[in-house]
Amino acid sequence: MKDELDRQRHAQSSGRTLSEFEFIRTLRQQVPVRDQTSLSLGIGDDAAVIRSHPGRDILISTDLLVEDVDFRRTSTTPTLLGHKSLAVSLSDIAAMGARPRWSLVSIGVPEDIWETNFVKDFYSGLLSLASHYDVQLIGGDTSSTPEKVVIDSIILGECGTDLAVTRGGAKPGDQIFVTGYLGGAAAGLRLIERGAHLPSDPSEDLHLIDHVMLRQLRPEPRVGWGIVLGQERLATAMIDISDGLSSDLNHLCLESKVGALLDSSLIPIDKQVADLCGRRALDPLQLALHGGEDFELVFTVSPNNVSRLPRRVDGVSITHIGEIRDATEGIRISEGSRVWELKPGGWRHF
Amino acid sequence: MKDELDRQRHAQSSGRTLSEFEFIRTLRQQVPVRDQTSLSLGIGDDAAVIRSHPGRDILISTDLLVEDVDFRRTSTTPTLLGHKSLAVSLSDIAAMGARPRWSLVSIGVPEDIWETNFVKDFYSGLLSLASHYDVQLIGGDTSSTPEKVVIDSIILGECGTDLAVTRGGAKPGDQIFVTGYLGGAAAGLRLIERGAHLPSDPSEDLHLIDHVMLRQLRPEPRVGWGIVLGQERLATAMIDISDGLSSDLNHLCLESKVGALLDSSLIPIDKQVADLCGRRALDPLQLALHGGEDFELVFTVSPNNVSRLPRRVDGVSITHIGEIRDATEGIRISEGSRVWELKPGGWRHF
Repeated sequence: MKDELDRQRHAQSSGRTLSEFEFIRTLRQQVPVRDQTSLSLGIGDDAAVIRSHPGRDILISTDLLVEDVDFRRTSTTPTLLGHKSLAVSLSDIAAMGARPRWSLVSIGVPEDIWETNFVKDFYSGLLSLASHYDVQLIGGDTSSTPEKVVIDSIILGECGTDLAVTRGGAKPGDQIFVTGYLGGAAAGLRLIERGAHLPSDPSEDLHLIDHVMLRQLRPEPRVGWGIVLGQERLATAMIDISDGLSSDLNHLCLESKVGALLDSSLIPIDKQVADLCGRRALDPLQLALHGGEDFELVFTVSPNNVSRLPRRVDGVSITHIGEIRDATEGIRISEGSRVWELKPGGWRHF
Repeated sequence: MKDELDRQRHAQSSGRTLSEFEFIRTLRQQVPVRDQTSLSLGIGDDAAVIRSHPGRDILISTDLLVEDVDFRRTSTTPTLLGHKSLAVSLSDIAAMGARPRWSLVSIGVPEDIWETNFVKDFYSGLLSLASHYDVQLIGGDTSSTPEKVVIDSIILGECGTDLAVTRGGAKPGDQIFVTGYLGGAAAGLRLIERGAHLPSDPSEDLHLIDHVMLRQLRPEPRVGWGIVLGQERLATAMIDISDGLSSDLNHLCLESKVGALLDSSLIPIDKQVADLCGRRALDPLQLALHGGEDFELVFTVSPNNVSRLPRRVDGVSITHIGEIRDATEGIRISEGSRVWELKPGGWRHF
């Protein structure tokens, strides 16, 4: 355990790679110090310190990403993995109608990986997305692991008192909306499983890569929509699509104690998914309904607020896909004149 | 990846073990809802929500524990592991002079472990310690892993505005103190590495087990001392001993830009460590100086505040071990009339 490895590490500590402490020092210098009124203390002590302000709620969430379960090291790049680790957490805060503010990252890597640029590139991808949304890295932990890379991404956000949008506020009659297009991330995962890979030259333009592969490897959280829907009190309930629309809508309905009726003809299917499925005689609707990791937002809006919804936020449109019904009606989807029960078909860990 | 496993999981989902969602529901029911003025929303949504109050700072820290690096599954029990996962985080908040309030835990376990009582027992150990210190579990994440158990323990604490005790406030002339006794956890680790093990019958009284093994497997964070030293503005700088006194004092001195002089005759060595070392002709001082994971607090006190220090908090005493000096003097330890440089000799991950 620690003592065994300790001797090895001390023997190495004069070697070419940065020690954990040197690395944390370097990271600390890379993170701009800003917003001292809200953050009293960032990376480098036993804990980070956030100043309380009246009228503000602080949100916190955590996402664990495990190699060969949530990602394969051979199918992504450290930079994309850093991006995705933060993106899934930003999506959680967006799903609460709040603004993401601070990030902490625990990362465990095998020793041979520590000696490469993996961790540096991982943080470069993470910090680039953080900077885009004005999120500050304020702490974390590093550890060695026997074999696999493991990442825990912790996010703190904020919103006005009582403005957080839970999964539990939907009422019968509320209209159901979803941001963006669905099924892309699941289609990208299938391409990757069938051997599609990123260009070996990392400098090659990512725009040349299949759009659906990027939906899987480099998800864009709907931060702007989350803030608008929360601040303007437009959403009565909200969740992000990580497990799949059918699963996540199920969570929302369970918490709100309601049912739902979706219209299958309204589900916004990613255009490339439709193309790919057409060529393989697959049903794109299944991917859009049950495919995970799109990180779009599903939310419900009271009928008299529907007209107040913006058409686009940050260039992302929304689509009306159905209506909240009484719990006794269950969760269903109409296809023409037929109506089916929509069973959760998305991802579950156990 | 997800889709591959997905099918297997759905096939299993009618089996005997709880699904992830069922488990989270059960956990939610176990956690008492309290303190609604501070916590608006706990387990079960995309994020937990904490109400801001003026005059309050919120602290956050995270600790990653990896199987076969930070613990061996064969040398501990799930209950002890749950205790330790929270204890190391409570220790971080204590080291900031703050009060621990909320915990989030990300846990990744292989599927065969999920099907045992491991996770249930883990949370039972964690929740028992949480309840002792009035800390509430408010969130987390679960994942499967290919092989090893991995835990990320996230803790939130609070203190009055600007009362957090950093590592950076020590001044030359400040007196250095440490809580409790040192070297026990490292001695316990050595016993475990040499084959000592817990009783196979988990109902057997833990008091029969070697005290130093419990120091390693079931550390007691110095929560009471942390709160007193912070609230009463007694400590000018503080850190907890996770890597080892020599390493952690080094961190404190670096951040404070000071040096230190310890008196080796004052170092409070765990009594059983002295006995064990005596039998093996080992130097107990080395374990006390460099052994990690004692989770005692090292702190510095301005000379005119020394008389204000309580003798004991929660039955734990403190010991005066040295003095902060100018940075140019480095970090040294006296042994009779001789003075040595005290190099950091504790644990580092890389």
